[in-house]
Amino acid sequence: VPSPPASDAAALLAAGRGGDKAAVARLLSLVERGGDDARAVGRLVHGAGGHAHTVGVTGSPGAGKSTLVARLVGTLRRAGERVGVLAIDPTSPFSGGAILGDRVRMDDHVLDDRVFIRSMASRGHLGGLAVAAPAAVRVLDATGHDRVLLETVGVGQVEIEVAGAADTTVVVVTPGWGDGVQAAKAGIIEIADVFVVNKADRAGFDQARRDLDQVLDLTGPGRDGGWRPPVLATVATTGAGVDELVGAIDDHRAQLTVSGELERRRQARLADELVRLVAAGVDARVLDATRGAAWAAATAGVTDRTVDPWTAADTLIAQLLR
Amino acid sequence: VPSPPASDAAALLAAGRGGDKAAVARLLSLVERGGDDARAVGRLVHGAGGHAHTVGVTGSPGAGKSTLVARLVGTLRRAGERVGVLAIDPTSPFSGGAILGDRVRMDDHVLDDRVFIRSMASRGHLGGLAVAAPAAVRVLDATGHDRVLLETVGVGQVEIEVAGAADTTVVVVTPGWGDGVQAAKAGIIEIADVFVVNKADRAGFDQARRDLDQVLDLTGPGRDGGWRPPVLATVATTGAGVDELVGAIDDHRAQLTVSGELERRRQARLADELVRLVAAGVDARVLDATRGAAWAAATAGVTDRTVDPWTAADTLIAQLLR
Repeated sequence: VPSPPASDAAALLAAGRGGDKAAVARLLSLVERGGDDARAVGRLVHGAGGHAHTVGVTGSPGAGKSTLVARLVGTLRRAGERVGVLAIDPTSPFSGGAILGDRVRMDDHVLDDRVFIRSMASRGHLGGLAVAAPAAVRVLDATGHDRVLLETVGVGQVEIEVAGAADTTVVVVTPGWGDGVQAAKAGIIEIADVFVVNKADRAGFDQARRDLDQVLDLTGPGRDGGWRPPVLATVATTGAGVDELVGAIDDHRAQLTVSGELERRRQARLADELVRLVAAGVDARVLDATRGAAWAAATAGVTDRTVDPWTAADTLIAQLLR
Repeated sequence: VPSPPASDAAALLAAGRGGDKAAVARLLSLVERGGDDARAVGRLVHGAGGHAHTVGVTGSPGAGKSTLVARLVGTLRRAGERVGVLAIDPTSPFSGGAILGDRVRMDDHVLDDRVFIRSMASRGHLGGLAVAAPAAVRVLDATGHDRVLLETVGVGQVEIEVAGAADTTVVVVTPGWGDGVQAAKAGIIEIADVFVVNKADRAGFDQARRDLDQVLDLTGPGRDGGWRPPVLATVATTGAGVDELVGAIDDHRAQLTVSGELERRRQARLADELVRLVAAGVDARVLDATRGAAWAAATAGVTDRTVDPWTAADTLIAQLLR
């Protein structure tokens, strides 16, 4: 059965719910494209879903996140879950095949009907991934995935924003990765619900665990008052510790649900998304305005020094804002 | 003679031109404060000046920038120039005394009537230093300083923006500082008009110079087509190489003037400033709106999932924009 056309978002959603991976892919392409298509899909999937548990996986490049995510998928699949994976790369202008081509570790799962894998990269449009990623998560949720894994390539600002916007955020570090102070600096202590020291068979594991525990002692409890992020050990290449990691992730979900924090987080994320959408819309209009005749005239007045920049800015702002 | 009151910007400007350092300080305080006071001063000094040569000095913390700037001031003073120094720290919430207190190396110049030294830090308001720094430079220009040195504490985004907005930008590195690739990554190759390897008496100097030359070979000519940034050697603690640095800075100014690039850069900076002022003004209005009743209602609709974020965002944007 061929998938419905891209123009029919509602039919795509129904097909995606029925397990049609091509339909899910088309919905995500619409979301990535931005503009009216993205809005149509966004409106459709808003309110649908709410069932999926979203797990962000972040950490330094080379920490073994991709291998770990592939292992997580394996464990979740054995438990019968339908799993979606979004690999987010804010530094790459490419999406789809580019990152995915490298993801040989995911090969086992690519042919699995109940695993959907997608890479998202920055398309350079305003708001970019920070706007598209939550919408993509919502698509995977609305199409019936039980678990959505959000993997980011590094620990930049956008990646922290994206990964931190999950129900549960897993931060992956390695032995020798640093003294925990680095983690605090990068702003990842605040977003971590679960720490994983991957490559735990390497020298320096005990030190890495001690460092993290020390930082956690200093910084107090995590985002959810009663939860102290556990520090787990994995060797993603062999799969050691991965079942325990899934256990910790599920413990965190249970705690989120019982405490009411899950709903609070989801509401906070929706409120954030509203701010981002408004900011992106306003920025787009300002960018448009910079290409207009009024802006050119104002710039000419400022650069030939007949008008000061403040006066010129006030004029342009008055033309833009109510 | 006491300085004019802060309310009389025109009198402060006249006093500052006459060499009254307290008057210059008051004008800069008005600029830092933002809002209507800053606008009044900005309008007054726009069009005045255009005489000062602005020199940005940036580079990693610990590269010896402050010592080097103090040495530059010494050389410029011996040549009879009136010199202004703005030390920019986007990471600090303090301004004025905070950084200045540490600047013991500047002690020789603090009592010099023809040297004005000021630290500017982020006050956390929108647009912040990126808006205030060019206005502060213009104040120093309009009050008759021949040379304005803009020193930044590190190589973050704001610092690159601020230092890169000088007529001539000096990037300070040290031996062992890295392989040039780091410079390219930090985005400082593009803004450098002159490179200085400070602490040139240390091991690794030749390597650092080679690395920079190699990166320059790869990246082609600098911002101004015909100018290849020279790589100079200094030992700021002894003053070695500082006269040559001033020579290179003056060579660059001469080249800028002859090629017409000086005026092009200044016009481009004014156009950039206009964009920043409009963006800051619009952002301030969006921030205001987030605190209003309409925003609260929209957020409530989104978080209880009766309205999707796109529809809510469109409503809020329509209320903000013309």
